[in-house]
Amino acid sequence: MDRWEEINTYAVRWIREAGERILASQKPLQIETKSDRNDLVTNIDKETEQFLIGKIRTTFPDHHILGEEGFGEDIRDTEGILWIVDPIDGTVNFVHQKVNFMISIGVYENGEGKLGYIYDVVRKELYFAEKGKGAYFNGERIPLLAQNRLEDTILALNPYCMVENRGIDPARLAALVRDVRGTRSYGSAALELAYVAMGRLDAYITMRLSPWDFAAGKVIVEEVGGVVTDVFGRPLDMLGNSSVFAGKPGLHEEILKRYLKGQE
Amino acid sequence: MDRWEEINTYAVRWIREAGERILASQKPLQIETKSDRNDLVTNIDKETEQFLIGKIRTTFPDHHILGEEGFGEDIRDTEGILWIVDPIDGTVNFVHQKVNFMISIGVYENGEGKLGYIYDVVRKELYFAEKGKGAYFNGERIPLLAQNRLEDTILALNPYCMVENRGIDPARLAALVRDVRGTRSYGSAALELAYVAMGRLDAYITMRLSPWDFAAGKVIVEEVGGVVTDVFGRPLDMLGNSSVFAGKPGLHEEILKRYLKGQE
Repeated sequence: MDRWEEINTYAVRWIREAGERILASQKPLQIETKSDRNDLVTNIDKETEQFLIGKIRTTFPDHHILGEEGFGEDIRDTEGILWIVDPIDGTVNFVHQKVNFMISIGVYENGEGKLGYIYDVVRKELYFAEKGKGAYFNGERIPLLAQNRLEDTILALNPYCMVENRGIDPARLAALVRDVRGTRSYGSAALELAYVAMGRLDAYITMRLSPWDFAAGKVIVEEVGGVVTDVFGRPLDMLGNSSVFAGKPGLHEEILKRYLKGQE
Repeated sequence: MDRWEEINTYAVRWIREAGERILASQKPLQIETKSDRNDLVTNIDKETEQFLIGKIRTTFPDHHILGEEGFGEDIRDTEGILWIVDPIDGTVNFVHQKVNFMISIGVYENGEGKLGYIYDVVRKELYFAEKGKGAYFNGERIPLLAQNRLEDTILALNPYCMVENRGIDPARLAALVRDVRGTRSYGSAALELAYVAMGRLDAYITMRLSPWDFAAGKVIVEEVGGVVTDVFGRPLDMLGNSSVFAGKPGLHEEILKRYLKGQE
């Protein structure tokens, strides 16, 4: 068993276990008042991160960890093996819908994505990729992404970006929305990136994410031939916030050129 | 067994059977070219409607049928018992995502919704209501909708409405988007109405639907205390196209008053 195989075996086990813990603790949500509910959610988020980080630290003491809830380290560079952990991506969905939230974990080596996991906790669906070895949905190989014409495109974009954002002129986004076939918005960056990898979405644009939101998705989308950059086509910063633009090959370049570039 | 119980027993059986037929015919989609695929989808849509209408006609020859694909009748009024059938709601999702599409059937008597069925074909999840007897998700009672503050609201709204639409000033929708907690868009009116009934969405606004898109959802949302009108608060036309605005009690009135009214 090589090193990545070993890491993968543990990661999958821990993610499924964390998912079970979330589902078990979610039950009482139904009888809580609103303020109790928000506290409880924060607690589940934190407990899940602590659970995952505890496992990583015990098993791989020389690995580094960057976590949304702050139980990882104060990471200044991407040297060595770095786990980037979002215990619950789509927290509003978690609170409000009790579905459509994900555990998202990317494992990077010297800044390069090696493993990506997006786990749909309620549906028990795992999107996974290992760099150079393919991407998988519930163990089944995800095909490479095909080309896609702009007018056939399903674009994930939150309407709020069209009201205001700090990066792209809303009128440019409106032109794009007008030209594509349809738009969707799911409220979980990890789910939206997983959908891009599956070809269920052709492109995804969002104005501000943290590394734990996209670390796993980037590995999975790239492994099926997709392109993941910021909205101006620049590489993502793995230690800071970025806008994110993920899309099919060809289509990514076309949308960049026609709608997004020239505003950075 | 009363008449509605009898209708219900058949309806559930036919919907599940239609779902199996869709899943079986969907398999070859993966090896089709784009144009083949569109043809095939149109065929599956039509075949499913013909299957459902055939069953209804044979078993209930005195009932009327309005179907999206046109195999029903030329319906001029809502007298008697009327089945309103959408064999595949979310056709773009069906083609593009192979998930997130629904069979949607509403059964009305003299214009009043009596039974509503929204069936998530891939996930085999059934949202159902019988007027006066409660709404159910996979057989489990859906609780009545609670009040919800505007600032806690998750709103379903397609970004395209904010680019252009024939009903509401996009600036008013932008103000609403700015004030709520978050927005979503799933590409299936039936799914979005089912989510409103479940409390997963607090409100849903869309500018143009046909009766088969909302006939089932209206029954289900109303049965849990939700309100379903057009975007100006007027009753929906069960025989023509309408905008649709569904929401929690209280919240529906507040959004109407503050953002939507006065433009009709």
